[in-house]
Amino acid sequence: MQQLRVTLRDVAAHAGVHPATASRALSEATRHQVNVETAARVVAAAHELGYEPDLTARTLRTGRTATAAVLIPDLTNPLFPPIVRGIEDTLAERDFTALIANTDNDGGRERRVLRAMRARNVDGFILLTAHRNDETLATLIRDQIPVVTVNRTASGSDVSSVSPDDNAGISAVVDHLVGLGHTRIATIAGPRTLSTGRSRYKAITAGLRKHGLGLPTGRVVFARAFSEDEGRRCMAELLDSTDATAVVAANDTLAVGCLDTLRDRGLRCPQDVSVTGFNDILFMDKLSTPLTTVRIPHTQMGVEAARILLDQMLGRTDATKHAVLPIQLVVRESTAAPKR
Amino acid sequence: MQQLRVTLRDVAAHAGVHPATASRALSEATRHQVNVETAARVVAAAHELGYEPDLTARTLRTGRTATAAVLIPDLTNPLFPPIVRGIEDTLAERDFTALIANTDNDGGRERRVLRAMRARNVDGFILLTAHRNDETLATLIRDQIPVVTVNRTASGSDVSSVSPDDNAGISAVVDHLVGLGHTRIATIAGPRTLSTGRSRYKAITAGLRKHGLGLPTGRVVFARAFSEDEGRRCMAELLDSTDATAVVAANDTLAVGCLDTLRDRGLRCPQDVSVTGFNDILFMDKLSTPLTTVRIPHTQMGVEAARILLDQMLGRTDATKHAVLPIQLVVRESTAAPKR
Repeated sequence: MQQLRVTLRDVAAHAGVHPATASRALSEATRHQVNVETAARVVAAAHELGYEPDLTARTLRTGRTATAAVLIPDLTNPLFPPIVRGIEDTLAERDFTALIANTDNDGGRERRVLRAMRARNVDGFILLTAHRNDETLATLIRDQIPVVTVNRTASGSDVSSVSPDDNAGISAVVDHLVGLGHTRIATIAGPRTLSTGRSRYKAITAGLRKHGLGLPTGRVVFARAFSEDEGRRCMAELLDSTDATAVVAANDTLAVGCLDTLRDRGLRCPQDVSVTGFNDILFMDKLSTPLTTVRIPHTQMGVEAARILLDQMLGRTDATKHAVLPIQLVVRESTAAPKR
Repeated sequence: MQQLRVTLRDVAAHAGVHPATASRALSEATRHQVNVETAARVVAAAHELGYEPDLTARTLRTGRTATAAVLIPDLTNPLFPPIVRGIEDTLAERDFTALIANTDNDGGRERRVLRAMRARNVDGFILLTAHRNDETLATLIRDQIPVVTVNRTASGSDVSSVSPDDNAGISAVVDHLVGLGHTRIATIAGPRTLSTGRSRYKAITAGLRKHGLGLPTGRVVFARAFSEDEGRRCMAELLDSTDATAVVAANDTLAVGCLDTLRDRGLRCPQDVSVTGFNDILFMDKLSTPLTTVRIPHTQMGVEAARILLDQMLGRTDATKHAVLPIQLVVRESTAAPKR
């Protein structure tokens, strides 16, 4: 289908100038080379005709596309959209557009998305998808493409990152549960292939140790994914193997699954078992048992990531930055003192 | 920052052929012009070097970018991500990439996004943002750019669309409430500037009339947006002006706001007032009062929209299609027989 596009030539004709003059008048960098009145006439003509500069041509000239790719592991997880909003808002301030793509936690799909984005010559990447051992990230680093990881980080590579303070978050959760009188605390840990899984698992071990408590084998189950299904499965496993009075889930989605299993087994939360989450995603305050969780600054994480990436894409710095953002414990009804 | 890209020239050198031969070998359309063994050698070399064709160059050649813009009014509303997933999956089957952008229900932002997408020469648009009187849509139609609207439709223009069966959905809700014994049924209608607001409002009027019931002035409040805040405000207004025993909210987000106001006023749902929603977004089954609502086929709506758009972008048809997808009433705990 033919696109009827207003060209630079149309604008020039309308303003009664040579196309080269119109081009100079329409670029802020070269406008001073043109007579002020002529420039004003060209700008007015462009506006009147609804002229949009063709970025494909601009790309060939500047080598920059003013786009950043944002790779998300699962857009249907409410954790990610507010982060994306922060990214988009901040990129837009510098006239960069976010090209968002889902990888669905699928390696093949992630490779396809990476290929598609690189073929479009995006100027940089924001990865919400990073694995601790991350192939995509390794490729981008090798090719010296600006990249920032958000929420999750990769190990063994020095790449800019923005994360919530996992350690402070889990530590606050443990302090809260111990303060309520819990001593038998179990955890549903996240996947060990993801930094969030690993760091929160390490944080709970450290947090319990601070209170002279341990985390014996029967009180830890590792989820294979941050999903409700895995939360249900892991909670069932914990109930079969331990007498814990509280369960620290590595994120809200797992915690929601926990609540399902408790209800299915005829157990009450928090009377029989206290449950905590992490992230404070949408509607956690409205569940049948409103969830005690750790609120992370979703939008601000996106804002910080976009700022760091813009600095790199615009060549203002090559320095690697690691932003660790403050969290807040939000106590709701899923935690209470243990029965005994 | 310099991007170290493997070029066609590198592939040709590696395979020991002329760049023009390499180019022919790498395109399915021209591969038959090259000796089979040579083509295989070039393809192997491209694979080995990690060659990615430069789409900026391809765009200049074919006039197609293999991208479709997807405009979303609010990515943080859980209604949209599963629709986007259906769109992405279907576009990917034809090697098209979805470029997703948020308009945040903001006219200025929508114009910026439209400009950015057009400057990137996207091949088509999927609008989840359509207003009944839609400026963006008018521009795209004028310029003969392939476009499909999803969920919402525009009036007065013949553009392909994919919608849930609003009429059947609201009709099922009304039948359910009347079946429980309700006769004083009120509604929180959606914004009149959006087709979903208007069509569901018309459907409830028709549905009540079928049962010999009316919808007097005091039993209708129009929300200014599909938001929890507006749900809270409208419910407060209804409680002040009517003795309705059931409230039909035009979507789930409004219904969630209703439930807040009922609780704040010390009223119970469903004992004092029954409440229904529309869409069945994430977690509606897990609310403190699990919501009776209308489930729409989110992912399938995205799939259908992408199929229609692909047909248009690939020039296989100019026909306008309107897909109205079936819905399902999901009865949960927010509805019960009225007290009297």
